[in-house]
Amino acid sequence: MSAKKLDQINDHLTANIDKYVKELGNAVGIKSVSGDPQYREETRRMVAEYGKNELERLGATVELRELGTEPGTNPPLQLPPVILAQLGNDPAKKTVCIYGHLDVQPAEKSDGWNTEPFVLTEIDGKMYGRGSTDDKGPVLAWFNVIEAYQKLNLDIPINIKFCFEGMEESGSVGLEELVMSEKDKFFKDVDFTCISDNYWLGQTTPCVTYGLRGISYFLVEVKCAKQDLHSGVHGGVVHEAMTDLCHIFNSLVSSDGSIKIDHMNDDVKPLTPEEEATYEPIDFDTEVYKQELGVTQLAHNSKAKVLQHRWRFPSLSIHGVEGAFYGAGAKTVIPHNVIGKFSIRLVPNMDPNKVLKLVQDYIAKVHAATGSPNTVSVTSIHGAPAWVGDFNDVNFTAGRNAVKRVFGREADLTREGGSIPITLTFEEATGKSVMLLPIGSSDDAAHSQNEKLNRSNFLNGMKVLAAYFEEIANLSKK
Amino acid sequence: MSAKKLDQINDHLTANIDKYVKELGNAVGIKSVSGDPQYREETRRMVAEYGKNELERLGATVELRELGTEPGTNPPLQLPPVILAQLGNDPAKKTVCIYGHLDVQPAEKSDGWNTEPFVLTEIDGKMYGRGSTDDKGPVLAWFNVIEAYQKLNLDIPINIKFCFEGMEESGSVGLEELVMSEKDKFFKDVDFTCISDNYWLGQTTPCVTYGLRGISYFLVEVKCAKQDLHSGVHGGVVHEAMTDLCHIFNSLVSSDGSIKIDHMNDDVKPLTPEEEATYEPIDFDTEVYKQELGVTQLAHNSKAKVLQHRWRFPSLSIHGVEGAFYGAGAKTVIPHNVIGKFSIRLVPNMDPNKVLKLVQDYIAKVHAATGSPNTVSVTSIHGAPAWVGDFNDVNFTAGRNAVKRVFGREADLTREGGSIPITLTFEEATGKSVMLLPIGSSDDAAHSQNEKLNRSNFLNGMKVLAAYFEEIANLSKK
Repeated sequence: MSAKKLDQINDHLTANIDKYVKELGNAVGIKSVSGDPQYREETRRMVAEYGKNELERLGATVELRELGTEPGTNPPLQLPPVILAQLGNDPAKKTVCIYGHLDVQPAEKSDGWNTEPFVLTEIDGKMYGRGSTDDKGPVLAWFNVIEAYQKLNLDIPINIKFCFEGMEESGSVGLEELVMSEKDKFFKDVDFTCISDNYWLGQTTPCVTYGLRGISYFLVEVKCAKQDLHSGVHGGVVHEAMTDLCHIFNSLVSSDGSIKIDHMNDDVKPLTPEEEATYEPIDFDTEVYKQELGVTQLAHNSKAKVLQHRWRFPSLSIHGVEGAFYGAGAKTVIPHNVIGKFSIRLVPNMDPNKVLKLVQDYIAKVHAATGSPNTVSVTSIHGAPAWVGDFNDVNFTAGRNAVKRVFGREADLTREGGSIPITLTFEEATGKSVMLLPIGSSDDAAHSQNEKLNRSNFLNGMKVLAAYFEEIANLSKK
Repeated sequence: MSAKKLDQINDHLTANIDKYVKELGNAVGIKSVSGDPQYREETRRMVAEYGKNELERLGATVELRELGTEPGTNPPLQLPPVILAQLGNDPAKKTVCIYGHLDVQPAEKSDGWNTEPFVLTEIDGKMYGRGSTDDKGPVLAWFNVIEAYQKLNLDIPINIKFCFEGMEESGSVGLEELVMSEKDKFFKDVDFTCISDNYWLGQTTPCVTYGLRGISYFLVEVKCAKQDLHSGVHGGVVHEAMTDLCHIFNSLVSSDGSIKIDHMNDDVKPLTPEEEATYEPIDFDTEVYKQELGVTQLAHNSKAKVLQHRWRFPSLSIHGVEGAFYGAGAKTVIPHNVIGKFSIRLVPNMDPNKVLKLVQDYIAKVHAATGSPNTVSVTSIHGAPAWVGDFNDVNFTAGRNAVKRVFGREADLTREGGSIPITLTFEEATGKSVMLLPIGSSDDAAHSQNEKLNRSNFLNGMKVLAAYFEEIANLSKK
């Protein structure tokens, strides 16, 4: 019965893929860059109009929850609202909560895109565009699956609660508080949560993901003068802000990725032989991975070490500098106020508050040793701990079965180096299992130039999501 | 006779100042940012139309010399032409060459300007606008003085040759070759050169300037992957380009400005007691200077040490990074290809070619020690040695007398930390004295936000330039 139903759904999804691609193009066309104030209105529109309209079209009851203004913004920036929506209310059915986000990372063609980042452009089955895979494609995949059930007059075997936000790429500001405040209301009867907002480990083997690193994102602001100075006229007598910032940056991390901040590794959960063994069966080739990245040498040699350093050890990346010269050509300026940006990926059992304290103390110590009179301030704009789930529970079993149905093979059991901080919040608010069920490929280049989603991943992903609906309904009946 | 003539001219200049300010506004309105390819056409227009038309209006014979395309640009960027113009051809008169530039540094209101950078805006006698003081104001001052002579039917006591360019802020690409190739042609009969493209040491005492530091500007390119990477997904296993660049940056210079590059100070001309003594009479207050910059502490304490480190010791400034994240907010990217930008101000007897070699060797050594597999390339986009002139020669005496006539006081004898590389070229091509005769104030903020020229400096500057015409004619007759 369920198999036949899925065949029908899969046929419908396959027949309508062009329509889905076109609609994804519409979604990508909305510049919902949450991190850039100039696109905040577009981000709001993406949630409050586009997301809301789509869900209402599918028959869901939609509430927009306003979150007020973004802390620390002046003039105050209004946050986009969060969508809380419900489709189905049958007491005989289990309730699955689906989370997704409608905002995207910044993108400019001049960053090195081959196509316009906000125009979905398909080349050889690859659909290029900002948000195609992170996370507009997966969000629309959910919509398309539900529409398929409805068009075919098939019963959706679960109740669905949607929680969609527009600030994921900027720390999910306000979402945690909202979800926790709805713990005993909107989220009270949620039985399982499923999130499709990450990627396969490689390009061929699908996976379910049971762990995520957390993140703490830091701003280091150094001021040296009241305005930018001419380096010819004043160079040599001023303690320059960039010099101090580079000294701080250099003190944070070695070229091989070792974090140099005092005590930063103290709380990292030790690697047991049992855990070590779990890395062996995973389909992952470091040579292919190197080619994918275009690097000549990785900081670690073995498959296990590489995966561990992506998933279960902390890492530190320096992202850039606000306030310094960034253009082409030559500008002979001494920037007077620079904001260095870096982040640390957190793993079990690191605590973001403790990490912030360690970073602040360490930078204060490192800067003081230079004797510079310049002021330095270190702030964290978001912090979220790591998360690890149980890949043998009902929710994960449904996901793994769904993958097996569509692909005829076992899903890899993976963790992710990236952060979806809200995962932990859903676990805490519902007290139930949260699973990550990605549809995109490892080479989708989320957050990078030429982000894309393969047409085949989009289609197969929808099939997996549909199978998951059936599997979770069946398994939880037993 | 000469005094009466100058009174007439000064009265005319004073009476017409509003007209001159308005015209300066027109010049500032042309976005001739030579360093930014998108403004290259405007830069060309500033030279080939604006500059040419103004000179022809004054009766000069104007030639535009094309310089071809800018080396290293792809697609090739056409360079703006250089103006070679001549006014007067009387064998009984001496010939003064006037150099100036019509291009400007980049400027965006969002950099922290209080007014639109390309709209000249006068507030309390300060005329804010990019290029107001560097160097459109001084160039227009020459024009206005010549126009005054002509309107008053007074004899201009010298022949004038003009050399105006549009690439000064970008290394004067092509100019040196042009000037040297015209050594025995256009520049053959030049007796003196005068350049007004720098600033007083303070805000009250005018000066003539007899020395300049040179500059070598460096690009350090580090590549780590074929495209930007998500720091969550890949952080921890990649030797990141920003980490390596920050390590290199940190190895270059200490917070107090000491250059750490091996052998970089070896060739610096030693400070003699005689030279030490010249700093004493100069009107310069380190406390006022600190307030001007908005710094709490300088890297050196005494007046002499501060001036020496601005004028006669090398300095190194880190300007910024191209290719990394530079916007507001948070972006969790591992930039794959970053170009760090820094420059070293050169002093007698440093040689730019040797400096480049020292920088390349040192960075190669520092980078190799990290064990990083990333490629690093170091290139210099322009290099120019320092210059020192003789402040007792006829040219400087004329300038000093001109200052005394207008201000009733001795000019400070200063050097400059900034670079006008072409100064040396004019000295070499003409074999004659080159003098710098600034009209702007130390707080004019050239290259910075809120660049301005005081209306009073503009007017008094024109009076000094007119007096210089008379003085140089008189002195060289003797």
